[in-house]
This record gives sequence, structure tokens and C-alpha cells, in this order.
Amino acid sequence: MAEPGSAARPARDTAQRFAAGSPRVLVAGATGFAGALAAYLLWRHPGFELVAVTGRSEVGRRLDELYPRYRVPLAIEELRLDRLEGVDAAVVAYPHAAAAPTVGALRERGARVVDLSADFRLGSLATYERWYGAHPRPDLLEQAVYGLTELHRQRIAGAAIVANPGCYPTASVLALAPLARAGLVADVVIDAKQGVSGAGRVYDETTHLSMAAENIVPYKVAAHRHTPEIEEQLAWLSGGGSPADEEGGGERSPGGSSVAVQFQAHLLPLDQGELASCYVTPTRAVTAAELAERFAAAYDQEPFVELVATPPGVREVRETNFCRIFAATDEHTGKVIVFAAIDNLWKGTSSQAVQNLNVMFALPEGEGLL
Amino acid sequence: MAEPGSAARPARDTAQRFAAGSPRVLVAGATGFAGALAAYLLWRHPGFELVAVTGRSEVGRRLDELYPRYRVPLAIEELRLDRLEGVDAAVVAYPHAAAAPTVGALRERGARVVDLSADFRLGSLATYERWYGAHPRPDLLEQAVYGLTELHRQRIAGAAIVANPGCYPTASVLALAPLARAGLVADVVIDAKQGVSGAGRVYDETTHLSMAAENIVPYKVAAHRHTPEIEEQLAWLSGGGSPADEEGGGERSPGGSSVAVQFQAHLLPLDQGELASCYVTPTRAVTAAELAERFAAAYDQEPFVELVATPPGVREVRETNFCRIFAATDEHTGKVIVFAAIDNLWKGTSSQAVQNLNVMFALPEGEGLL
Amino acid sequence: MAEPGSAARPARDTAQRFAAGSPRVLVAGATGFAGALAAYLLWRHPGFELVAVTGRSEVGRRLDELYPRYRVPLAIEELRLDRLEGVDAAVVAYPHAAAAPTVGALRERGARVVDLSADFRLGSLATYERWYGAHPRPDLLEQAVYGLTELHRQRIAGAAIVANPGCYPTASVLALAPLARAGLVADVVIDAKQGVSGAGRVYDETTHLSMAAENIVPYKVAAHRHTPEIEEQLAWLSGGGSPADEEGGGERSPGGSSVAVQFQAHLLPLDQGELASCYVTPTRAVTAAELAERFAAAYDQEPFVELVATPPGVREVRETNFCRIFAATDEHTGKVIVFAAIDNLWKGTSSQAVQNLNVMFALPEGEGLL
Amino acid sequence: MAEPGSAARPARDTAQRFAAGSPRVLVAGATGFAGALAAYLLWRHPGFELVAVTGRSEVGRRLDELYPRYRVPLAIEELRLDRLEGVDAAVVAYPHAAAAPTVGALRERGARVVDLSADFRLGSLATYERWYGAHPRPDLLEQAVYGLTELHRQRIAGAAIVANPGCYPTASVLALAPLARAGLVADVVIDAKQGVSGAGRVYDETTHLSMAAENIVPYKVAAHRHTPEIEEQLAWLSGGGSPADEEGGGERSPGGSSVAVQFQAHLLPLDQGELASCYVTPTRAVTAAELAERFAAAYDQEPFVELVATPPGVREVRETNFCRIFAATDEHTGKVIVFAAIDNLWKGTSSQAVQNLNVMFALPEGEGLL
Repeated sequence: MAEPGSAARPARDTAQRFAAGSPRVLVAGATGFAGALAAYLLWRHPGFELVAVTGRSEVGRRLDELYPRYRVPLAIEELRLDRLEGVDAAVVAYPHAAAAPTVGALRERGARVVDLSADFRLGSLATYERWYGAHPRPDLLEQAVYGLTELHRQRIAGAAIVANPGCYPTASVLALAPLARAGLVADVVIDAKQGVSGAGRVYDETTHLSMAAENIVPYKVAAHRHTPEIEEQLAWLSGGGSPADEEGGGERSPGGSSVAVQFQAHLLPLDQGELASCYVTPTRAVTAAELAERFAAAYDQEPFVELVATPPGVREVRETNFCRIFAATDEHTGKVIVFAAIDNLWKGTSSQAVQNLNVMFALPEGEGLL
Repeated sequence: MAEPGSAARPARDTAQRFAAGSPRVLVAGATGFAGALAAYLLWRHPGFELVAVTGRSEVGRRLDELYPRYRVPLAIEELRLDRLEGVDAAVVAYPHAAAAPTVGALRERGARVVDLSADFRLGSLATYERWYGAHPRPDLLEQAVYGLTELHRQRIAGAAIVANPGCYPTASVLALAPLARAGLVADVVIDAKQGVSGAGRVYDETTHLSMAAENIVPYKVAAHRHTPEIEEQLAWLSGGGSPADEEGGGERSPGGSSVAVQFQAHLLPLDQGELASCYVTPTRAVTAAELAERFAAAYDQEPFVELVATPPGVREVRETNFCRIFAATDEHTGKVIVFAAIDNLWKGTSSQAVQNLNVMFALPEGEGLL
Repeated sequence: MAEPGSAARPARDTAQRFAAGSPRVLVAGATGFAGALAAYLLWRHPGFELVAVTGRSEVGRRLDELYPRYRVPLAIEELRLDRLEGVDAAVVAYPHAAAAPTVGALRERGARVVDLSADFRLGSLATYERWYGAHPRPDLLEQAVYGLTELHRQRIAGAAIVANPGCYPTASVLALAPLARAGLVADVVIDAKQGVSGAGRVYDETTHLSMAAENIVPYKVAAHRHTPEIEEQLAWLSGGGSPADEEGGGERSPGGSSVAVQFQAHLLPLDQGELASCYVTPTRAVTAAELAERFAAAYDQEPFVELVATPPGVREVRETNFCRIFAATDEHTGKVIVFAAIDNLWKGTSSQAVQNLNVMFALPEGEGLL
Repeated sequence: MAEPGSAARPARDTAQRFAAGSPRVLVAGATGFAGALAAYLLWRHPGFELVAVTGRSEVGRRLDELYPRYRVPLAIEELRLDRLEGVDAAVVAYPHAAAAPTVGALRERGARVVDLSADFRLGSLATYERWYGAHPRPDLLEQAVYGLTELHRQRIAGAAIVANPGCYPTASVLALAPLARAGLVADVVIDAKQGVSGAGRVYDETTHLSMAAENIVPYKVAAHRHTPEIEEQLAWLSGGGSPADEEGGGERSPGGSSVAVQFQAHLLPLDQGELASCYVTPTRAVTAAELAERFAAAYDQEPFVELVATPPGVREVRETNFCRIFAATDEHTGKVIVFAAIDNLWKGTSSQAVQNLNVMFALPEGEGLL
């Protein structure tokens, strides 16, 4: 690994235009879809200096060879923990269990970390171990803040480790937060759909165009790892959780009542895009007016949440950090229906990581993302 | 309109190989997706003679010009009611309200009819009028049988008018029938997804590839016309409805208890294919074993229902009359999840029409469809 | 490997309806796209009995698990050469070099073979070895007939080994044959485009939907192995080659003049479909009338070639054995333009194999394919 | 039409951040694909103020309703020629023949114009009239400069009217310019492919997903209006045309020798993307080294042309102003093969318009585009 920042840049620097003195950021695991997109967003970001992209494979190849669209002209390096001086922050894009030790090593060398894996998303260690096996670094859990920016902005600002949410929980929790906070969710079915990029750079029969195109397939029936993540957040919200409450620190799950979420994932015949269709049985009747008020109160000041008047298509948010939300009541059934559309790779993963970095380093939250 | 049967056939007759003395069938409204596919299936059917294809537009053009894939070399004619002698059956592929008068006229000339519109699907005239406006021929309702073949086979066999189900009800009701019949459905959310062909030969922003590709969009929130159709069938089933019960005639909705169905449609970025994801809150705990037994009992002898061991993708049933069903219990929530995949144009529309014609004319049910 | 024919068939036999005494056929290499489709076509074929499907992987799994759409309920077996008694024919779907030894072994046990690989496509051993390396069984070359049915029907009828053409040569040679036979091709550019299925069941970045969708990529520039195959056929045609000439045997390349073909392949963002756009500089001026006559003379009696009046889209031939051809002159440049559209997996590979089997066993050429 | 600039902007201004004193630009015809994208690019451009978007339909609707992805929160207005004071420039996105009168009116009120139609692309009025009919404003032709930025940059800088090239000529001429300028093109076949967005917001059977997906179709055989545009540019280049030569003014077609171009368009099953595959018969043998040198000399300093080492896919340039070019010689045929990939809506249309505006107003050429 070269000295941070020394990676050769070509003469025609297509995007990088960071200000002098910008925080220096590294992306570990830049060969996967999520890491590569994070590298792209940071490379073109005016407020960060992307100092290195590392990978556990493809070392020596340039990232713009693997991902031509992103045009990041840096060579992929091995992660050398002895050369991290001057690195202010890192995005870690490793699989769960592989991430935590690297997050720990980076922390010990002073870098603040946005971790894209599941390792620090769950407040409950027991829940983590039920779904993922032994946790490699449970000691770090207390340093970690759940990185759904809109809900935990204040604690993210000061966090050492930000556990970037899963893409499904991002859409699902944003869709349900205004109802959960009001204690209105008695029961909920989340029917979620996502493009093939959600599987990452995995080459098998689920991603081969000849199987994936002209298809839609449900997967992980009654057993999706994102369910407990959603349930933890809804429980925290139902206990009154809000960004403002967090100022003094606060528990991750402050005693809200829990709802067993029916979550179901489907694979869509498209590249990037995710829709969470949420069907809520409310604890009491909810009028359209109350619904509109609650969503407006929650999101009118949010730069990346768009409340829309017609059900959103995922194209409307493709390659953006926006989440589009539409909520309605159904007089026939009494249920509340909420749709949330995001780009699973952007707001669902990598651009939310940059949104969090912006918050962590006191930059305008939309810097590099609008 | 030429004399039935006189339409010129080209020298190289690519498919038509009907047996002498086969019932003579006409397709009215063959210029739309559903009618054109019905014409194709009947043209290549060994047990029917396709005598004419009619349209309200495109008269004089050959159907294989409009639909090259189907290779039906007949010219589109105007429907001439004075030239229907010798026509044994008709498939009517008109929009609702436009269909009923034509169905009536065909009946009066002795033809048995499979109607693809909504005009004869609902047992309750009041429900019809709430969703579709005044009914042009309410007098014919009592002649009509609901054409979900697997549920109403016995009455279809003798029916004068078969009301071919909507594509969404086909998948949804097949998914839920074994539970509904056992009175197990306390509450149900149906999250349904369908390809663009479901909109038919409509040219607008919902079908333009530049908007429809790389997208998924919910539509008709809390207001889909297929909801009452599903509810009527579930009510009939919960009252003990079964093909065998029908032998003696029987009401269409024999007093079963009703469930308010939460039905939601989504537009998929693909051509043909439909998935109904059903989330049932059961009236009592249901074990995996009971679930498997109930579905096996309902469908093991059905030629076009396939119970599968993994969640079905719509590709698996594309351009077939099959419905693939997967059912599971979720221990976490206690809910029952059922997926049903069909091709919306085939089993959801036109091949089911042919399946019904086979039943009506005592041909093997799979003739021309396997 | 079980006794041929003993493979268990399920109770609900969805398609297999072969006549008693039908030739018994085996598919070797049924786990790939081409072999699986050949198995499907033979399974539902009324004139052949599919006795076994073999694979070098996935042994023991059922073919309908790997390829649900095809619904062939046979278990994949190892190929046991000691159990081939009673096998009349085989389709071999192996990669080049792996195919020839198996073809030889099958021949020695009396089976007639349609080989889908490149091993027997080229008349010139030297050309083969330049592109593919050493030939494992050059002794068999003289038994082999090039399997472009429309050109070599008469010799195919009696052949021991039929070398099924590559998909690109199928479309290209059908497009150019009427011109080549008349010695009209001075120079030709073939710009060919094919769907992802052409790569087969290969999982990599060329087939991952996230890279292949919304894309088109040229590949193998100035170096496609199909070029010499096309050139050999055009040379044979320019020497006067025709099905009738072949009756007495005849050379594979009887001294026609050769044209250096500019062939270029492109990967399309779709599953099945292939278009060859051919730009011919003629040896002399060609009128539209002459062009129409030559193509009509060549193909008017061909059951699977359709001359069309507007440029064909590949959808029009999807999942069929048809080749659609459109030819035009360009007054501006004097060139002749010919488009040929096929389904690369059907006419380009597996259904043409069945067409050849029909010819070899004196069945109607379209049996099981219309 | 409101006073320029007075159009209400919403509180949360997602992108517009132009500098004070920026040139004020209007987009006429913003309801189509090209105009809407131009509006989006100008709205987020730091160096232009987008003062109004006009349309001949949809007046009063907000542009972000029609094109949610672009998030331009301006209402569509009628074009009021009496309210153009203070408008420095306009992008006109009208069909041919409709554009010229509006271009004239805008010129008469002092605005500089980038015209996206064909009205000012051809130097020869006779050629224009052969393909498009009578020219509404031939008097303006001498004010117009052909807007392929890389070729005509110097004259564009001072132009009153810039005739933005067609998307096919953009890719084709960039692919061939280094060869044409050296007089190396004896004969050329251009096989071009483009996504459905090239047809614009047209709703018919060519754009309906059910016809356009899983398809590729050639269109306008031997009769594409872009052919003369390409030929004029190649003739100009073969006469030694270069940006530097133009300084003193210069003819649009200074006497180069002409080549009859064989151009063929195909419709691809994707939204945005265009590939021109060019097959050149050179006037003399060209080595790989000479080829590489000529392309490097032409494009090494070009900010938006990328010479690449492997054939480019259109995904690599999607939603960018880049043109990726790959050139190779074919020893077998002696031909030169060049591929050029662009996004037909971006570099092929709207982002090239902005590139031209940057040049016209002396802004950095990549401003707002990188």
C-alpha cells in the first residue's frame, strides 16, 4: 500500500476537486459494488480526499478497469494497517464477521469508520449471534451508532463507528418511523423488492441475466436477517426515539414495545432500485389527515426524504440519495399503506455512508450528493 | 366478415391442425394482447377450428402483421352478427361494458362464450355497479359461471357464459383457496406484481420502455377493481365452496364469511409474468404439516397447478398455463405466506380461456396447452 | 447410468407423448443451456423417445430443478458408454475438443450423432487446428456433414455425424446463401448481435445482469472463431453448392472462390435472440427485383425460413426454429443489405439439432417444432 | 410566460447554485426527452441561470411532475417572444421545420441559440430539402455552426446559432474523424444501435416495453436522414478540416472528397445508450501503430473523448458526456474497425448542447458535466 494520498492520478482528473485540508478517507473493500460506489462518491466529493482504495482481491488493477462507469483512476492496494497515519476516516465494505476486526484495527489507529456490514447494526449481541454467529469484536459495540441518518443524526455527528443500515431496513424504517414513533403499528407486513445489484458482485444463477431478466423471485422466506434490524429500530421509535432525544446519549433500544415484523424480500429484474411496500394494521383508526400530518412533521425538513403525492417508482430515485415516500389509508380495510423507494446501492448503502461522513465531519449533509 | 371458416389460409400453414368436426370458434377483439393470444392458442389447437378473428380497429390487416410472433395468418374482420351461423363458441376480448352486449348477441345466436372482461365475474350486481357503473346486460348474469377452472370446473362444463377471471384474482384465489376453504383466513395482505403486458396494447408513459424499464411502481392504491372479485371467491370458498359442491347448481356466493382483502398491485419492468405474495393472518395456528396437507389435497390432481419446494419465479411459468404455488409458515409472526406465480397473459387470461373451452367442449383439459 | 429408457417418469407426464417404436435419443451434456433445450424439445417431441440426459456435473439432480421452465422430469446421469445399447441417436452438447471423443465413442456403439460443438463443423483440418488446437478425432471428419439444414438437407438425411452449425453462422449463411451461390459477394461485413444466453451457463461479469443489462458490447474483435465457418460455407456456395448437388456425395468445399468475411459479434442486453446485419458489396449491380427473386427461389419452399417485408426483430422468432430474412438494395451505396433474425438457442442451436434429427430419421422436418 | 427568472422555486432548492451574473438560459420544448434533460443539466449548472422552461403542451404542469428524476421544480410556460428580454441563450428542442422559425425569433431578440433539430445541421440547403422538405429560414444558415464540439470548437465559441448534431452523427463522426482527416476512408459501413429513448416521448409499438424489450430491430433501411449529415462532416474532414483551420471562418464543406456512407440504425432493448460500429475499407494499408497514433493525436487532449483498450459497452458512458472509442485493424480483411459509445441523450443530444453553451460563453468546457 502506497503512502496515503500518493496513489498516482492521471493527467486528466475527471472529478476529484477536494478543498485543501479536507479529511482524508480510505475505502476498504472497494472491489465490491458498495465499496466501489463509495469510492466514486468520495472521489468526486469536494469535501473529502480519497487517499486509497483497498481490496482483498484485484490488487494492482485500477478501479476504473473494474468499474469503468465510476472513473476512479486509483490502483487497488492491499490494506496495510501500518500505513494508516493521516487517515481520518474509512468506509469498510467487507462481509459481516470479516468487517469487525478491520473496523477495530482502524479505530485503534485513530480513524473514524462507517461500516457497511451488519456487524454493528444490532444493539443486541444475542440477536446478532442468532443470525450471524459469534461476534468478532463485541467490545466495539458500544462505540457504534446506527447510521440511518434521518433518525440518529445527532449521535452520528460524534460517533467513532457508524453502522450503516442494511438497504431493506433503510427503506422500511423510513417508511414506518412516523407511525412507530406514535405507537401506531399493531402489525406490519413489509413486502420488499430489490434489484440484482443488491446481491453484489456475485456470479451465480440469481444474477445471470438469462435467469434474472423477465423474472421476479421471492427469497429467504420467513428468515431474512434484516428483520431483527427493522424490529430493533421500530421498538426504539415506539419508545419515543427521535434524533433530538439522543442528544444526551441514550440507549439504542429505549424500551419501546416490540412488533413482530413480517418481512419478505423479492429479487427484481433490474439493476439498482428498491421498493418497500408496507401494510400496517394500526393500533387505532388513522385518518388521512393525521397520516399526512405525521409524515410531514417527520420529514418536511429532511433534505433526502421526499413525500410524494403519487406512489413512487424506483426510477425516480435511481442513482440518488433520496428516499421517496407515499402514505395512504385504506378505508376498506382500515390499514395504512406506505411505500418507500430508494436506490439500494445509493441511499440503501454507499451514498448514505457519505451522508453519514458529511454529518460526522460537520460538512453540509448534502455535500457531494446533490 | 367472410363466411366463418372461409378466411384465406396461406399455403404454408404453420400450425393449424384441427380435427375434422372440431368446434368452430371465433375470437372477438383479437387486436389486443389477450384476444391475439387466444387466437394464437386456438389456431394451433388440435381440437378447435378458429373460424374468424374480429376487431373494432385494424380491419383488413392480417393478425400476423400486428403480432408476428403468433403467426396467425387470418385477416381481421368486422364482427358481423348476421354471419355467425355455425359458430359454436366465441372468446370475447372487449373492455368491460363493451363486452356484455356482444356476449348477449352471441348467446342469442347460439354460441357459448368465454368472456375476458369483468362484466360477468361478480355475482353481485351491486358490487359490479359500484366499481364499473351500470351493467349493460344484467339479465345474463345468471347464465354466467366464474371461470377459475380449478374451482368451478363442473359448472364451467355446462356453462353458456364463462366469465374468465382477472389475472390478479387467478393467482390470488389459487394461492388462498386451500386456506379459505378451511376458514383459516382471518386477514390477508396480497402484494401482487405484474408485467407491462397486463396493461395491454396501451401506449403511454406506463408502458414506454424508457419509463417502465429499471422500475417498479405501485398503482391503484386502496382501490383496485380486482379486490371485490377476490373477496367474492374467498367468501364462497369459506362457505365450503368446491367444484364437487357445485354439481347441483349452487349459488355463486353461498354464505361464506367475508374477509376484507388488502390487495395492492405493482407494475414490474418485464413483459409477461405475475406474482401474488400473500400474507395471511390465520384464524388459528397452522403448522407446516397441515399447510402442506391442505395444499396437496387441493392441488395434487390439478394438471395446471404445481406445488413447488422453493419460492417460484415468474420465468418458470412464462408462456404456460401453469400456476406455481409455494406455501410456508412463519414461526416468528405466526403468519402463513403463499406465493403464486402465473403468466398474466396465459393462465391469467388467454390460456385459461382455452382451458375453459376445453372443459366446455369435453376435450382433455390440457389439449393445446401442454 | 440407468438402462436407457428406464429413467423414472412422474405420474403427471406433462408433455412426453412419443409414438411406440420411436427412435431412442440421448442428450449428453444436458446441464448447459443448449443441451437442456435439446432435452426439452425431444421430451415433448411426438416422434422421439428421450431415454436419458447426462451431465458431467449435477449428476443425480433432476433436470427440471436446474431448468424449471423446461419441465423435463428426468434425473441427470453420468454418461455410461457400456449402457448405450438401443440408443439410436445422441445430441452431444459438450465444449469443442471434449465433444469429439464422445462423438467417436457413441458412433462406435452405433448411435447417430448431432454434435453441437465446433469439432466437426470445418471441412479443413488445418483451419480447425488454427482456431481450436489439435483435433482429438480427425478420423471422423469424413463421416460428418455440416448441419445447416436448409443447405445440406440431402446429406444430413444419411449422415452418421451432423455438425450442428454455430449460431452466428446459421443466421449469417442463411442471409448470404442466395447471393453467394450466384457469385455476387465481392465483400461483406457481418455485424452480428446476440443475447446473453449465447454465452451459456457461464457466471461472470459478462452475464451478470448488473453489467449486461442496459448495455451492448462488441467482443472478440477481428478474431471470432465463427469467421472461418462462415467463409467455408460461402466458398462452397460460390462454387455452386446446393442441396441437390449434394446427392451424389460431394466435397464440403468444392472449389468456390473465397471471400474474407468481416465478422463482428456484439453482446445484447437480452436473453435469447440473434440478429445478423449483413452489408454486401456485390460483384455487380443488383436490382431489387433480382434480389427478391433470388431470395424467393432459395427459400420459398423452406418451412423454417420466412422472407419478410419489413426488417425483422428478434422477438418475432423467439423460441421458434424460424429464421426471418429481409433483403434490400441501397441505391445510395450500391450495397445489398440483408438481415437475418433467429433465436440463438433454438434455430441457432438446439431446435436446429432437432430439425436435423427429423431429417436423419425421415420424420416430417417440422415435427415437434411447430 | 412569467418574467424570466421569476418562476417560483421551492424552499428546498435541490441543485440550482449558479453564480450571480451567470448567463440566463431558456429551454424551449422542455417537455420532450431532450429538452427536459437540457433543463436538468442547466438547472444544476453552476455557471448558467435557467430562467424558464417552455412547452407547446403541458403548460402549467411542473417539469418535475413529468420528469421526476430530474427534479427541476419549474412550471412549464408558453413561449412568449415578447418576454425574452434579458435571455442570453436558448436551447431549442423542437422537431425539424418547427425549430427554425423559433430559432429566428430568438435570434432577433438577441439570444444565442443551440438548436437540437436538424434545421441547421446541413451545410447544403439542397441536401436539407431533399430529406426534410422546404427550409423555413434558409437565411439563417450562414449564422449556424455545426455543433460537434470536438471538431468545431473554435467557431462554436463565437457562433450565434449552434446546430447540435444528431446522436448518430456524433458517435459516427467522432469514430471516423481521425481516419477521414487523413484521407483514409475509401468505404465505410456504420452499423449503429441505439436505445429506445432515441425515439423520444413517443408512445407507440416501437417504444412499448412488451415489444421493445427482448428485441433488436433494424429501422430506416437504406434511408436514414443522418447519412447526409455524416457524409458532409467526413467530406469536410477529408478536405483537411480541423478546429484550428476554422479560425478564420472557413467553409462548412471545404472541398474534401466524398464517401458514400452505408449507415444502418437499429433499435436496442434499453433506455439510453448508443454504439456505432464502423467498418472502414482504408485507401491504403493501415498498421495498428499508425491507427493508435492518429487516434491519440486527435483525442488525447479532448476532455470528453476516452480512447480505451477494450471495446466499450454503452453502460460505461451512460448519463455522461463521454464518448468512448476503440479502434483496431483486422489483418484478415485489411479493414479498420472503430467502435464509438455514447449516451444518445447526453453526448448525443443534451449534454453536448451544454458543452457547446460552455464553449459559447467561455466557461470551462466540462463545467456542470463532470
